[in-house]
Amino acid sequence: MKLLKEKIQSEGKVLSDQVLKVDSFLNHQIDPQLMVEIGKEFANRFEAEQITKVLTIESSGIAPGLMAALELNVPVVFARKRRSLTLIDDLLTAEVHSFTKNETNQISVSRKYLRETDRVLIIDDFLANGQAALALAEIVKEAGATVSGIGIVIEKSFQPGGDLLREKGFKVESLARIASLAGGVSFVEELEVVR
Amino acid sequence: MKLLKEKIQSEGKVLSDQVLKVDSFLNHQIDPQLMVEIGKEFANRFEAEQITKVLTIESSGIAPGLMAALELNVPVVFARKRRSLTLIDDLLTAEVHSFTKNETNQISVSRKYLRETDRVLIIDDFLANGQAALALAEIVKEAGATVSGIGIVIEKSFQPGGDLLREKGFKVESLARIASLAGGVSFVEELEVVR
Repeated sequence: MKLLKEKIQSEGKVLSDQVLKVDSFLNHQIDPQLMVEIGKEFANRFEAEQITKVLTIESSGIAPGLMAALELNVPVVFARKRRSLTLIDDLLTAEVHSFTKNETNQISVSRKYLRETDRVLIIDDFLANGQAALALAEIVKEAGATVSGIGIVIEKSFQPGGDLLREKGFKVESLARIASLAGGVSFVEELEVVR
Repeated sequence: MKLLKEKIQSEGKVLSDQVLKVDSFLNHQIDPQLMVEIGKEFANRFEAEQITKVLTIESSGIAPGLMAALELNVPVVFARKRRSLTLIDDLLTAEVHSFTKNETNQISVSRKYLRETDRVLIIDDFLANGQAALALAEIVKEAGATVSGIGIVIEKSFQPGGDLLREKGFKVESLARIASLAGGVSFVEELEVVR
């Protein structure tokens, strides 16, 4: 997605060979117009999948997840990292291991918002080791529903998550795939389909 | 806002005289079309205020904050409840006391996303005791910027937050004001301006 890659080049800050900071438009300050375009792009890429629900994870997945759901005309559900006081329902849970923080956290979704008939599009802001996406996929499976796709805003292709998810047979679409952060951002060469 | 009140009546669950659960459309599952309408309503109510930035708080403020920002054509920033690994900047912080959980947490915003010239619209999903909105207002003040309004999706008017904020001189606009949860949801009587 050309617009997103330009934004990453102009505003992204490379903090190390592993860490790209995009908090001016994606995960602290958010550019609403860019999110609209991201939502449209996800909807285009998964239009054949008959998606009935978008599933994402708080907090940085909410903006792109919401905009994808708006375009697909379906609800979005966000998994919680902490148990809410009023979330007293039957919960679907999974463990997410963070390699950067070296900790494992439980995420949860109320069972009533995922049905066996649901065709779910999982959306997240970043794909690095794939642990968050895998945990969301586990929750979908627990509900007896179908993962119909995984949409990622920025994939760090030099980390193993993308390969891991594709090897498991998931249809993964990343709007920007970063080949390397060494000496600046370089993207994986891809054919840009202009719509 | 008629559409929102109807949604609260049809899908809200009254868990006690104090607690209304709206996780089917606002703070766990989100109805994207309703969020678009909520964004438009906030933009209408604050259109005279020359807003330059929307400020909200993770996670449930992000969806209404994003949609308000989209309509106002300005960026949205969400305050973080936990310090992020890549948030290494100079931070504006404030304490939020939760009466329900009886705990105090620090929230933070990177200083570079709030300027002295900013006219800020604070958005949140619920207004009860007003502590989150006050903390966000404190962060705006710390930045030397101006709070030009506070927009709330659901105000529990039987709790003190609304009065507290209005007494401090803030322009508070709540899209649904709940008078009582005893024996079901009843709203504060208001003139509905149909646009």
